[in-house]
Amino acid sequence: MKRCLLIGGAGFIGTAVVQALLVEGSRHVLVLGRSVNPVRELPAGVDYVCAPPERSHEVLMRVLPSCDEVIDMAYASVPKTSFEDPVHDVLVNLPFSVDLLKLASEHALSRFVFVSSGGTVYGNPLYLPIDEQHPTNPVSPYGITKLALEKYGQMYQRLASLPFMVVRPGNPYGPGQSGNLGQGFVATAIQSALQRQPLTVFGERGTVRDYIHVDDLARAIVAVLLHGRTGDVYNAGTGQGNDNVMLLDRLRPLAAADGLALEVHHQPARPFDVAANVLSVAKLTYDTGWRPRIDIDEGLVATWSAAKVVADWKSEA
Amino acid sequence: MKRCLLIGGAGFIGTAVVQALLVEGSRHVLVLGRSVNPVRELPAGVDYVCAPPERSHEVLMRVLPSCDEVIDMAYASVPKTSFEDPVHDVLVNLPFSVDLLKLASEHALSRFVFVSSGGTVYGNPLYLPIDEQHPTNPVSPYGITKLALEKYGQMYQRLASLPFMVVRPGNPYGPGQSGNLGQGFVATAIQSALQRQPLTVFGERGTVRDYIHVDDLARAIVAVLLHGRTGDVYNAGTGQGNDNVMLLDRLRPLAAADGLALEVHHQPARPFDVAANVLSVAKLTYDTGWRPRIDIDEGLVATWSAAKVVADWKSEA
Repeated sequence: MKRCLLIGGAGFIGTAVVQALLVEGSRHVLVLGRSVNPVRELPAGVDYVCAPPERSHEVLMRVLPSCDEVIDMAYASVPKTSFEDPVHDVLVNLPFSVDLLKLASEHALSRFVFVSSGGTVYGNPLYLPIDEQHPTNPVSPYGITKLALEKYGQMYQRLASLPFMVVRPGNPYGPGQSGNLGQGFVATAIQSALQRQPLTVFGERGTVRDYIHVDDLARAIVAVLLHGRTGDVYNAGTGQGNDNVMLLDRLRPLAAADGLALEVHHQPARPFDVAANVLSVAKLTYDTGWRPRIDIDEGLVATWSAAKVVADWKSEA
Repeated sequence: MKRCLLIGGAGFIGTAVVQALLVEGSRHVLVLGRSVNPVRELPAGVDYVCAPPERSHEVLMRVLPSCDEVIDMAYASVPKTSFEDPVHDVLVNLPFSVDLLKLASEHALSRFVFVSSGGTVYGNPLYLPIDEQHPTNPVSPYGITKLALEKYGQMYQRLASLPFMVVRPGNPYGPGQSGNLGQGFVATAIQSALQRQPLTVFGERGTVRDYIHVDDLARAIVAVLLHGRTGDVYNAGTGQGNDNVMLLDRLRPLAAADGLALEVHHQPARPFDVAANVLSVAKLTYDTGWRPRIDIDEGLVATWSAAKVVADWKSEA
């Protein structure tokens, strides 16, 4: 069995990737995170190793020789916080991942998948849906550091034959996403409804995004790990765009069935929000056979139900 | 008179930019550097301020309000050293310049010129000469951090109207360049000849580069400052390529006239050297009227003579 190191594998997307790897059935999974214990419970048989920032180099040196594959989805900032302190965004993300890529290039790995950001690396789109050839002019520090890490990986691929591949996800949503991080419109909208708080939409209809269910995204990451072409970049979305108002129209009946309303406040559009981001996934489908399986309305039902269970549990506690 | 802040202005290129700004005659020049005193003597009337890394933020906060323009050419690494320690390359370059760009976006500057690297941001060329539309896939950490800084500046241009422009120089050479830094083939070759040391060429003919005289480059940077279009990127080279052997053939008669030889050792080509890099400068000429003035042979004579004066002075001392 191959041994797959999943960095940042205890987060929202990471947990789903662990499940997808276990379903695949041919991998031992080792999750590496910053905290002493994983922030979410890991399934039986999955190992965990703690790499605090000040010791990450030595932990990687110790762990990498026993690994065949790496999936790097570690990120310690989100687009919104990256604006407030772009230097912090550099310091918490680049040194760790650049060091990881250099070390990885010195080991005989069979695959290295870097989870980038299809929602931010392209910037304002010249055309929709956005394919992987589209120019990359990010308008957030988060997107700039993600893009820089793609370039480091591609450099080590050219110079040291690191078997490097990039996944650029759209906007993931699904059960278990926190509504408090300043990203994840679906999670924020559901949390607002459940807490009877108003929700802010920037601009008349908000922004158009390519919402992908986290389980579909997890399968996409595993598909690239198994079948992606070395050196290549893959969008992972659905090819379908929803603006904020469309998404709220989809959520409203779910809220109404629970006797809840969606109260919306509008504020002016923000200059740093790209108006629309919808990803072409033709390349991923062509190269790996992957397709999204979970329809947005079906996914929203599951997400709403899961959030409601948590909210009910909290209100009883 | 406008007040121009020149960051990194005491180095090899910076000194020439100071001269070009003084020739222009319409600027007060303030040079900002890391060392307590400027590493090279500055002309009369040019101010100097020291910004040690740990205090750079507060020095910038104090200095920026009195400045109209910024030229950022600060860089604390070179391509060769950036390979050995890419994390160090990140840490010594990105935090300072990202902070500078954020602070600059919060002040009412009339121009911000960032001196990037035409020799490294493009990576392996798909066609020659390379124009500004060419894809950017750097194969050195140095090129990746330079490219990332271009993206930060363009982000602040879009979001905060920072009047940001990029200059991408070819390979500068000229009197005063050090032969010890692991970059600057002309300086290294001349120093090797004067010290009667063999010179290493990687591959049969070495690499093709666009050598631009430092005074032409300095005028190009000032031309972009004065006449460049906000948000635009400008190559600054000559459009002419010379491989290492061609360049040595140009230097050999100068050495012979002083009774010196050029002894060359060949080693295998290095994977991280781009085989050829020649820049199209049509855009810079079209937008600003700038053209290179110093023919390569004329420039090499001046560079050789200056290096010889230094060497004679040292041997007498």
